[in-house]
Order: sequence, then structure tokens, then C-alpha cells
Amino acid sequence: MKENKKEVKIEIMAVGTELLTPYFQDSNSLYLTERLNDLGNDVSFKTIVGDDWDDLVLAFREALSRADLIITIGGIGPTQDDRTREAVASVLQRKLIFKQEILNKIKERFNRRGLSMPSVNKKQSYIIDGAEILENKNGTAPGLWLDMGSKTVILLPGPPQEIKPMFEMQVWPRLKKFQTGFTSRKELKIAGLTESEIETLISDIYPKTPPLKLTTLAYPGQIEIHLTSYSTESQNHAERKMHRLEKIILMRLKDKVFSVTGEELEEVIGKLLNINKKTLAVAESCTGGLLSNRITNVAGSSNYFLQGVIVYSNEAKTQLLGIPPSIIEINGAVSSEVARAMSLGIRERSHADYGLAITGIAGPSGGTQDKPVGLVYTALAWEGGDEVVKNQFLGNRDTIKFQSSQKVLDMLRKHLVKLKLKAPMS
Amino acid sequence: MKENKKEVKIEIMAVGTELLTPYFQDSNSLYLTERLNDLGNDVSFKTIVGDDWDDLVLAFREALSRADLIITIGGIGPTQDDRTREAVASVLQRKLIFKQEILNKIKERFNRRGLSMPSVNKKQSYIIDGAEILENKNGTAPGLWLDMGSKTVILLPGPPQEIKPMFEMQVWPRLKKFQTGFTSRKELKIAGLTESEIETLISDIYPKTPPLKLTTLAYPGQIEIHLTSYSTESQNHAERKMHRLEKIILMRLKDKVFSVTGEELEEVIGKLLNINKKTLAVAESCTGGLLSNRITNVAGSSNYFLQGVIVYSNEAKTQLLGIPPSIIEINGAVSSEVARAMSLGIRERSHADYGLAITGIAGPSGGTQDKPVGLVYTALAWEGGDEVVKNQFLGNRDTIKFQSSQKVLDMLRKHLVKLKLKAPMS
Repeated sequence: MKENKKEVKIEIMAVGTELLTPYFQDSNSLYLTERLNDLGNDVSFKTIVGDDWDDLVLAFREALSRADLIITIGGIGPTQDDRTREAVASVLQRKLIFKQEILNKIKERFNRRGLSMPSVNKKQSYIIDGAEILENKNGTAPGLWLDMGSKTVILLPGPPQEIKPMFEMQVWPRLKKFQTGFTSRKELKIAGLTESEIETLISDIYPKTPPLKLTTLAYPGQIEIHLTSYSTESQNHAERKMHRLEKIILMRLKDKVFSVTGEELEEVIGKLLNINKKTLAVAESCTGGLLSNRITNVAGSSNYFLQGVIVYSNEAKTQLLGIPPSIIEINGAVSSEVARAMSLGIRERSHADYGLAITGIAGPSGGTQDKPVGLVYTALAWEGGDEVVKNQFLGNRDTIKFQSSQKVLDMLRKHLVKLKLKAPMS
Repeated sequence: MKENKKEVKIEIMAVGTELLTPYFQDSNSLYLTERLNDLGNDVSFKTIVGDDWDDLVLAFREALSRADLIITIGGIGPTQDDRTREAVASVLQRKLIFKQEILNKIKERFNRRGLSMPSVNKKQSYIIDGAEILENKNGTAPGLWLDMGSKTVILLPGPPQEIKPMFEMQVWPRLKKFQTGFTSRKELKIAGLTESEIETLISDIYPKTPPLKLTTLAYPGQIEIHLTSYSTESQNHAERKMHRLEKIILMRLKDKVFSVTGEELEEVIGKLLNINKKTLAVAESCTGGLLSNRITNVAGSSNYFLQGVIVYSNEAKTQLLGIPPSIIEINGAVSSEVARAMSLGIRERSHADYGLAITGIAGPSGGTQDKPVGLVYTALAWEGGDEVVKNQFLGNRDTIKFQSSQKVLDMLRKHLVKLKLKAPMS
């Protein structure tokens, strides 16, 4: 994001021995990075260090030597292992000063819950000499802000429910002095194209200059394009630059882009159905409930989702959807005919406006030469018509299930969009 | 894991500007950490740095000064941004040497796919003077192993599908010289207890000495206890020590432990049903397909899972499960009576041995004073009996859905275990 600006070197240092085990990952730094990016700043280093005193001192000393702004996460709790405060003070050769006002607040916090403060918490009322206190509304450990002229050090707590409100309320306003510009951000989500197909369509318009950035994240069945625009002038300028790029991408990728607001496909469909007062029912075989689960992950989906059936056995296909056994016998359960019959059957029996159906082979076993793993038929039925698509997906059981649900949801989305019914504002 | 052993300081350094954005996280280091733990070694530092030359040199120089074993991940690809090889050579003041044998292999790799090698890939055939080549079976970038007496530096590629096989085949055998002992590991999974309930039951047997370690991971509806045992003597010794601790934990937590092999609850149930030749059908309301989806995530679940219905509307409850509208009217859709009727209905209609049912309020809206968000009834029906449990879960829509599915699966598990039917070997 460098565009004629003085560069601020930033290091994020996550402290905690659990972060050096195979079980835990620092995710706070992703959130901090996004917010620092908003101010026009990049993060240069991330360090993860345990509770070991020597390692901690070594890591902070190094951070101090190479960065202008150092944000530590964690290690300011009440236990003996929590020594970020002490290590930073030691490297800076500053004293720890007792603050009665902090102790009172911690005691109050315990009293409000009818408890008395354990003695271990007393250490949290010491601050590094010269530091400003960052109030913690959601925990006992206050954060610290140390302005040392050319260097700034910020100590934040580790629990996500503590660090986020503290950052927003206490750190963000103070960080304004590091603001080098304005950042605008957009997330386009795409179904029905592979990463290389998108590359072919838009590689010539990839931004070459750093103030505009394009990052592609590819998952089986979904591609996300993250656009970031940076301006030293104004927020408006950043947004205008991004809007130009976004417009060109939308012209190239057309209706493959299902969201420009970060919404998932099931949310987009929920809005389209809701606004048009249409209802939905689904019949799943190989996806085994994933499609219904995704649809019902959207709060308020009971407004448009009537029912789903998971017809794993052939008997269930006949019993719950009225598919004649002969159709299954002649074509096989994984066939265009059965997919079609499933979508028609669920629509008719549920009295929904739309019926969605999926039948296929998710693997790892069950594939044949004629019908290999990944062969999936997706079907959509509406009043007076229906559509079936034959797909050959790659991947494992999970990703084949996801791609199948994605495909059939996208068929419904395109159908709703083509109808030129009322569209939600995006 | 320190137990009278010489300590090897290890640093993992992940390279790549994308790892300093809000979108990507280094997860390779979790895998590497687990394997290093297996040899009795802890990781002391993890550093994440971008492609910037100065930063990269600075980060590697610091790693070299504080660690005995440095493993870099990424930055050895063919593009101009990939400069880990160059930066390491520069800090070590070693030359980069062209290796015809590597170039041949890269060319072959492209030729096999009918392509000619792009010229950018040529740089990958340079190695740091004195390094051993770590062959890459799944990509073009060979890894490097640099033994410098007191220090060892290993350069590995970033893509997970490349780093894992390279580590297992090329790095693991060479790392044996760092082996300080033997590690044994076990994962207990628990449902139906909270973290603090478990704490109360086993806190007095928490291992105090480092060779035995206990880590608790808590999720809504599931607790995992990871046990690690370390011995300087032998693998057998490590296992014996762990087995003693495991036995005590199992005695305390009893049948709340559903797995000692890392298996998920749906896998445990799959095995129990399979081995006893029993079948299953489910009726879901508030979980909206999650329960069926979890059950069918297990490969081979079509052997015992017959069908599922997601009865979001009251009409669907009547139509698909034969529940008299009066029962719903009198008791409400979220009630013990309706849950029971759902489990009996799905069992009867599907001819399965077991019927599972869930009805509740997943939120965020739909709650009342009498029936708040998180109120969920879970039901199990079998030949000649049934059981309904009233639950009050905390959390958001997702976690309430998960806890509901977990509860009903655990009811089935306990029922199957109590029957003293054949149990799978664990």
C-alpha cells in the first residue's frame, strides 16, 4: 500500500505457550491486520513466542529494534505465566507502578458477581511507568499504551472478546496518528468459474500499482476476489478508484458474481426468495443434509424454507417423493431422470414454489467407470418447468458435497435473477 | 517437555506477503510443531515475514542468532517474489550454485504434462552452497537441508500438499539427530460435560511435571483432552506413563468419554450401528439438516442411514411424520410431546431401528419468555421405547444447532452402549 508515504514498520507479537502447540493458532492478528490496513499501514512482522522469560525478552527486544509500532497480544492475565508486562518493562528499563484505581476496578468486577478478588489478580494493577491505561470492559487485564516518541508499544489482552472492544474503543482513536491514508475494501464472491477461468478473464486488468490490490481466494465451488484500494487523499478517492476496478470485473464476470457485499450464496437466495415471497423445499441424496443445513443457517429462513428430505435409500426416494421404482431401476439412482423426478416430487408434495434436488456419488467408494465419484446431477423445478445439470466434481467427500450444494443454489439464484423479479438492494 | 535433556531451540519461519494480510494464516507450522513434538522437541519461536528483502534478511538473521534449528516455509517458488533461498544464502554468506540435475527434473515434470518449462522456473535449480537437496515429489521447488554443525537450517515449500510429503520422506529421517526422546499422544473426546465440570472431576490429577502434559480444548457441546507423554527412555515408557493417566481420567469421566482415538461422535455411532447391523432415520426441525449432514459426512453411512426429514413448517411435521395438528396446537412445535412424536414418526415411517428427532429454537429470533432461544428437545425412539430430553443451550444459532445434534447423537450412543451389543474395538 505504499504510495509516497512515510512507512511505519509494524510488528504484531502474540504471546502464549499454547500458541506454540499443534492445537492453537493466533487469529487475533488477522483482525488487527485488517484494522491496521484500514489506516493505510501494512504489517511487516508477526512473531509468536511462549511464556519462557528469556524467549519473551529476546523476542520483544528484537521487535523493538526493527519496528516502529509493536502490538503485543496476550500474557497480561493474572497467572505466573503471564509476563508480557514484566518483559516489556525489563527491556525498556522502566519500573512497574502500582495503580490503586485499577485494583479498585478489578475488585469491583469480582464484587459485582458476588466474589472477592483472588490475590493473584493484584499483579494486573501494575502498569509500566509512563504507560496510558487502556480500559478493559470485558475482563480484568487492562491494556497499556506506551508512546516513546519514535516508537509506540501497545499491550493487549489475548481473549478475542476482550481484545476487539478494547481495540475499537481505546486503541483505534489513538492510532489515528499512524494514519497514512484511506482504505476501501470490497469482496466479490463467485460461483461457477474456476480460479484459472477467472484469471483468463481478468488477468489483464490486475492492478499493477500498490494502491489498488486484488487478492483471490479459491475454494472448491467458490472464488472470492478481495479488492483493496488505498488513497492518501480521501476515503472518497479510495472508493472511486476501487469502484472503477469493480465495475470492470463485474462486466467481465457478469452473473457469475453472486455477491459484492460478502454475503454467502444461501443468504443471497434467502433475500431473493423473501423479497419475492417465494418458498423452497429440497430433496437431497449425496449431500445428505448439507444443502438444507446451509439454507437454514440463515436466520429467518423459516419464512421461505418449508421442508427438506434426505433420501439416502431408494425406498425413501419412492416413499417421500413418489418416484416410481422403475425409474430408479432403469436409470440408476444417480441419473438425470431421478434428479428431475426428485425436484418435481419435492416441489409437488411440499407445495413450495421451488424444488431443488441433488443426487450423485460423493465417494470415496461407490464410483464406477460409467458413474465415477464426483458425478452429481443437480435439479431445479418451478411452476411450469424444470432444469437438470450433470456435473463432474473433483475433490473429496466434503468438497464434492459442498460443490453440489453450491451448484444447485446457484441454479436457483440465476433463475430468480432471470425472472426479473424484485431484487434486493446490494 | 524438558526432562534432563539438552534443549534444542527451534524457530519456524513462514515466508509470504499473503500471510501478512487479513486473509491467510500459516497452518503448516501446526503440523510441523506436532512432528517436532514427536521427537521430544518444543518450538520456541514462530515468525511470519513477507517477501520484502530487508525484512526477510532481518528475520532470518535474528532466527539464526537465537535458534539451533530453523525451518523456513515458503518463498522458494519460481516468481520474483520468492526469495527465501537468496536471503538465507546472503545471511550465511554462501553462494548459490546451479544444479543441472534439479533443472532436468523440473523440465521433466513439465514435459510429462506436455508443457515446456517456463524460464522463470530456472532459478529453482540453484541451491545454497553446501546444502543437501530435499526432493519435491509434488512440485517444482526442491527443499534444502543445511547442516552447519551447531546450527541446522531447513528450507521447505509452502503448499501443504508439497511440504507434508517432503517433511515425512526427506526431513523426518534426517531430524532423528534432534531426537531427545519419545512422545506418545492421545486425544479423548467428551460430550455432556462442561469444561468446568471436567476441571472439577480431574483437576487433582492434572500432571504437574512437564513429561506428561494435558491440554483441554473446549467447544460448545464437545471437550477434547489432549494428553502428551514424553520419555527419554523409550516409546514404550512414554506410552505406559500416558496409559496410567488415561485410565484415571476414564475412571473419573466414565461414559462421558465417547472416543479415545480422535474419532468424531458421528463416526463412533456409525461403527456401533454398522457392527450391530442397526439402521437410523432422523427428523430435524431447528437443526435444519445439520444432524443428517454430520451423519452422512461419514463414508459408508449409507449402510445404516436410511433417510432424514427437515420439517421446518408445522404442515411438514404432519405430512412427513403423521403428527396430528392438535398435538402441535396444544403443546407448540417446540415441546416434549412433539419431539417424541417426531422420533416415533420417523422411526415408523422409515422402518429404521432408531429414530432421532430435534425440535427447538436456534434463534436469534423466535424466542419467548416461556420458550427462550436455546430451548431444544431431543428425542430417541427404539423398538419398544423412547426418551426425550429437554435442553437449554447457550450460544448463537450455529452453536445451538451443533449442541442439539451432539446431544441427540450422544443419546443414541449411550443407548447402544447400554444395550451391551457388540462394541467396536477402540
